[in-house]
Amino acid sequence: MILDRDAFGRLLMARLEGRAPESFIERSDGYIDSFHVSEYFNPEQDADVVRAMRLARGRILDIGCGAGRHALALQHRGLRVTGLDSSPLAIRVCRKRGVRDARVLGIDQIGQFPAGRFDTVIMFGNNFGLFGSPARARRLLRAIRRITSPRALILAQSLDVHGTRNPTHLGYQRWNRRHGRLPGQVRLRVRFSNRVGPWFDYLMVSPTEMRSILRGTDWKLARCLGGPGALYVAVLEKR
Amino acid sequence: MILDRDAFGRLLMARLEGRAPESFIERSDGYIDSFHVSEYFNPEQDADVVRAMRLARGRILDIGCGAGRHALALQHRGLRVTGLDSSPLAIRVCRKRGVRDARVLGIDQIGQFPAGRFDTVIMFGNNFGLFGSPARARRLLRAIRRITSPRALILAQSLDVHGTRNPTHLGYQRWNRRHGRLPGQVRLRVRFSNRVGPWFDYLMVSPTEMRSILRGTDWKLARCLGGPGALYVAVLEKR
Repeated sequence: MILDRDAFGRLLMARLEGRAPESFIERSDGYIDSFHVSEYFNPEQDADVVRAMRLARGRILDIGCGAGRHALALQHRGLRVTGLDSSPLAIRVCRKRGVRDARVLGIDQIGQFPAGRFDTVIMFGNNFGLFGSPARARRLLRAIRRITSPRALILAQSLDVHGTRNPTHLGYQRWNRRHGRLPGQVRLRVRFSNRVGPWFDYLMVSPTEMRSILRGTDWKLARCLGGPGALYVAVLEKR
Repeated sequence: MILDRDAFGRLLMARLEGRAPESFIERSDGYIDSFHVSEYFNPEQDADVVRAMRLARGRILDIGCGAGRHALALQHRGLRVTGLDSSPLAIRVCRKRGVRDARVLGIDQIGQFPAGRFDTVIMFGNNFGLFGSPARARRLLRAIRRITSPRALILAQSLDVHGTRNPTHLGYQRWNRRHGRLPGQVRLRVRFSNRVGPWFDYLMVSPTEMRSILRGTDWKLARCLGGPGALYVAVLEKR
């Protein structure tokens, strides 16, 4: 077993180079699922995201840009996009694919941009999850407020985990509740071949849970595209 | 994570009941691969096995019968088949599917049959692997000698692991060699959902390695169907 801090980026790079290793995501309870790394290269897989991308305007910040699928699509529309990812190899993939401004930067470092720099922040691909926990979400939403213009939007995709009937997921949700966590707080890691990425926290919320997180921040949930009980894109506006 | 002694059988039962959970096999080095449990229900997936099944005659012992795919095919030809599997749920699946003589029995217990009882022993589905190690293979081949008739055959499928170019597999093979093991000795466990089966040893050999294992037993490798550098069925005869 090889602990690989950038297992995710290595997968993206393998795919860019024409290999497509079987890819797995493991949850802290041992639940394993497979995923297709090719999805990170296809911007049109999700109708809600396609609709939400039309709302993007001005200077864009793409948090967790992965292989650059959304950044590239928006760039092609003439928008200026800054793509961030904590994965060095993901950023290398973005650059090779033509993302003009792609930077290795973790979500905790987004406060370092100048005030008012961005007009739209996108977190597609279920990337509201990168906030990790409600407390961290609130802290980061404050940072995003500062680096965005007065009428900025956040377009953030999440998954309403209350829609599942899978007994294993429901058991995980019960465990979360008993420990004072939101049902959709998960700890995950990427695996492929004999490589294992680091554990990371991921937060999936219903629109109601998202509203409760936004309380006390300067953001409000203006509307949702998609859902209920499934993936949806939240359109967040400044109050 | 739920340690499930019969994770494999539970998968087969789930498939019989119309669910088909995503199924994974994990190797001791952390290598993960997916597999399709439906393959355990399809007897005609493998041309070498289809050819080898025509050699089966008399009373048949199916070691590691799984969901009964081969036992059922041979039964349909009018042969008497005894299916063994260490998995209680696999045996329940076999019975529900119509295998008339299916027993929960681990490979280490095969000595308990009367002398000369079987005319053909089948170990398809790469089941030569169930021998686990060369020493255990020799011991069990002696037991099989006793419970089979003078002109009995063993039809045993294995995989020649020397055919791979996968660097992770090659690394595992090097580690094995350094530790005095055959390159194709692997430790595996079944995973699906949050369930994890027990580790088990599995032995994959080339025809040359198989011949070396057979030395000193009363069995000889008469011929191979399939291969080289891949799956093949070995036809073993008594010397």
